[in-house]
Amino acid sequence: RYGYFGQVTPEVVRLMFCSISGCLTDGNILMSASGEEMVSIQYRDTQGLRMLQEEKVEVVLLQSSLDPLSQELADKLSKRTGCQVLQVGERPLNDLQSFVEQRKLEWKDVAYMGSDRADVNCLNLAGLSAVPGDAPEVVLNAAKYTCHKDGGAGAVREFSEHILLQRQKAESALKQDRIDSCSK
Amino acid sequence: RYGYFGQVTPEVVRLMFCSISGCLTDGNILMSASGEEMVSIQYRDTQGLRMLQEEKVEVVLLQSSLDPLSQELADKLSKRTGCQVLQVGERPLNDLQSFVEQRKLEWKDVAYMGSDRADVNCLNLAGLSAVPGDAPEVVLNAAKYTCHKDGGAGAVREFSEHILLQRQKAESALKQDRIDSCSK
Amino acid sequence: RYGYFGQVTPEVVRLMFCSISGCLTDGNILMSASGEEMVSIQYRDTQGLRMLQEEKVEVVLLQSSLDPLSQELADKLSKRTGCQVLQVGERPLNDLQSFVEQRKLEWKDVAYMGSDRADVNCLNLAGLSAVPGDAPEVVLNAAKYTCHKDGGAGAVREFSEHILLQRQKAESALKQDRIDSCSK
Amino acid sequence: RYGYFGQVTPEVVRLMFCSISGCLTDGNILMSASGEEMVSIQYRDTQGLRMLQEEKVEVVLLQSSLDPLSQELADKLSKRTGCQVLQVGERPLNDLQSFVEQRKLEWKDVAYMGSDRADVNCLNLAGLSAVPGDAPEVVLNAAKYTCHKDGGAGAVREFSEHILLQRQKAESALKQDRIDSCSK
Repeated sequence: RYGYFGQVTPEVVRLMFCSISGCLTDGNILMSASGEEMVSIQYRDTQGLRMLQEEKVEVVLLQSSLDPLSQELADKLSKRTGCQVLQVGERPLNDLQSFVEQRKLEWKDVAYMGSDRADVNCLNLAGLSAVPGDAPEVVLNAAKYTCHKDGGAGAVREFSEHILLQRQKAESALKQDRIDSCSK
Repeated sequence: RYGYFGQVTPEVVRLMFCSISGCLTDGNILMSASGEEMVSIQYRDTQGLRMLQEEKVEVVLLQSSLDPLSQELADKLSKRTGCQVLQVGERPLNDLQSFVEQRKLEWKDVAYMGSDRADVNCLNLAGLSAVPGDAPEVVLNAAKYTCHKDGGAGAVREFSEHILLQRQKAESALKQDRIDSCSK
Repeated sequence: RYGYFGQVTPEVVRLMFCSISGCLTDGNILMSASGEEMVSIQYRDTQGLRMLQEEKVEVVLLQSSLDPLSQELADKLSKRTGCQVLQVGERPLNDLQSFVEQRKLEWKDVAYMGSDRADVNCLNLAGLSAVPGDAPEVVLNAAKYTCHKDGGAGAVREFSEHILLQRQKAESALKQDRIDSCSK
Repeated sequence: RYGYFGQVTPEVVRLMFCSISGCLTDGNILMSASGEEMVSIQYRDTQGLRMLQEEKVEVVLLQSSLDPLSQELADKLSKRTGCQVLQVGERPLNDLQSFVEQRKLEWKDVAYMGSDRADVNCLNLAGLSAVPGDAPEVVLNAAKYTCHKDGGAGAVREFSEHILLQRQKAESALKQDRIDSCSK
C-alpha cells in the first residue's frame, strides 16, 4: 500500500494459521496399547508463537480431521501455547475463509504454515506462507518460504522470526515513506 | 502386457504389504517399567497410505512375530491407518502366498515394503518393492527402490507416491497404446 | 590473575548454571491427553554434570517460567542429576545475581549454558558460556562457545568437558607461573 | 591360534557384553512427573542380538549403576532381547572378570560394546570391541571398531554383523589351514 515505483511492500501480518501436525509437531503420534496418545512440541517453537502474540499477531493452531487428536490433547496444546485451536476438514480453506472475513482481513494479511496436500490452497493465498524443511515435494512448491528447520524442530520459530522481520522491514519502509512525503 | 518392442510396462499395483516395524515406525519401541509399550507413526505416512487406498490399492500392514506388538496396539494402528494388520512369522512369504492367491493376484501386482532379513524373499518377488533409507545392507540390495527417507519418517509416504506415479505412467502408456492401435 | 605479558588466563569455574529446556533436554515436551508430561535427558549429559561435581563445580539447573515443568518432574531431574533446580523468570539475571553474590563469586567464575533469548544477558556476563549447536541465531552470538552437539544430545557433556579442560589449563599455567617465580 | 607367518587370526567371539545406556538405547531416559521412566530400543538391534545368539554367542546386557533403570524395566529389556542383564558398578571390569573366568574364557574371546568412560578398560581388553558413532571422544579411541550408526539406532546391529563376519573369516581361515596341512 505504501510502496511505489514497483517497490514490493514487505508484508504486515495480523493473523497466523499454523498446522499442528508436521509444523508445530514433527507429525509423529506416539501410541500406546492402553489408548494413550502423545505428541511432542518444542520450547523454541512455543517461544516463537509468543513472540508473534507479543507483537499483536493472532495465532490460530489448525487441527486436521485427517489426523485427529483427542480433544484433551488439543486443549493442552492450546493452553501451553496460548493459542486458539481450530478444527479443519480436508479443505482448510473452506473452514478458514469466514474466520478471515470476520476479522475484516484479507488473505494477504495472513501468514499460513502447513505441511501437506490439504494446505496447498491456503499456502498459495496467504500473504506469507511457509513449510517445514521436511515437507513432501508437492507442498514445498506452494509455499513462499521453505524453512531450514524441520517440523517440530524449530520450523515454527524460524517462520515466526521471518514474519517479524518482514514486519520490521514494512515499518521501516513506511517510516521512510513518511519522511519522503514530508520532505517533498 | 501392453508394452511391446521390449518396452517395460510400468507396474499397476493392486495390493501393498507394508511392515510395521522399521517401515511404518522407525523400529523403536518405547518401554516403560509399568508395562506400557509405545510406537510412533508419522502423519505423512498415514496420509500416503490413504492416498493409495483412494486409488483402490488395498494396503495390508504386516506385524512380525519377531517384533511382537500387543494386540491393542496393532488394533490402534489398524484403526488410525484404515488398514488390515496381518501377523506374519519368520518367513512372511509363507503367510502371504495364499493371501495373494485368494485375491487372484500375482506377485507382480503386489508392492512390498520391508526393512529386514525376513523380508528379502518378498522384496525380490513383488512387482514393486522398497526399503527405507536406513535399512541394513543385506536388505537394501533386495529392493527395487531405496527410499531417501528413513523408516517412520516419511519412507512409506515416499513409496506410496512412487507407486502412484508408476500407475499414472502405466495408464498413460495404456492410453497411448490404444491410440496407436486405433490409428493403425 | 596469574597471567602476565598479556597472557589470557584460562577460566577456573566454581559454579555452573544450566538451562533445562533446550540444553539438558532437546526442548521437547511430550504431552498426553491424560495430562502426563515427559521430558528426555541423556546419560552422557548427566555424566558430564557428575564430572563437574566431582571437580567441585556446583551445578544448578535452571527451569524457566516461560516453559514450565511440573514440580514433580523438576524434582526427578534434580534427583537424577544430583543438582539443585532453580526457578527463573523472564530475566534470569535478576534471579541469579544474588545467588552468585551469596557464594562470594563474580560472574567471571561462573559458567552459563542457555538456549534462548532470555539467556543472552547471562551468556554475555559469565566467564565461560555456551549454547547447544541447534540454538536460534540470536543466542549463538552471545555465547563464548558453540557446542557441536545439540541440546539434549550431548551439548551439556561437551561443555562440561570444555570447562574441565579450561581448568586444567589454568592449573598448568599457575604451576608454571610458580616455577618461573621460584627460578627468578 | 591357527594363523602363521604373522597372519592375524580373525576373532571368534563366544561372549558379548553390551551396555544398555548409549549402545542398546540412545542414552535417553524419558521421565514423567508421575514417576514413569521409558527407554527406547530398536527392532534392528534386537535382531542383531538374536543373530549372535543363533550363532551360539552368549549376549549379556550391562546396566550401569551410574545410570540406574528400574528393575521392572531391566526385566522387560531382558525378556524382549532374550539376554541376561547384569548390574555393573563404576568399574565394569571388576564385575565382569569372574564372569569371564567362570565360562573358562579369556578376554580375547569376548566382544564388548560400551559408550562411556567407565567402559574404557573393557574396550581395551576385549578381543573385539566397539562404540556407537556418537560416543564421546575419550571412548572412541579405546574401541577397535567405531560404528557408523549411533547408539539406539543400529549400532548394536552393525557390531553384531561385524562379529559374525569376523567369525566367518576365522572359520574360512581355519578350513584353509586344514586343507594346507593335509596337502603337505
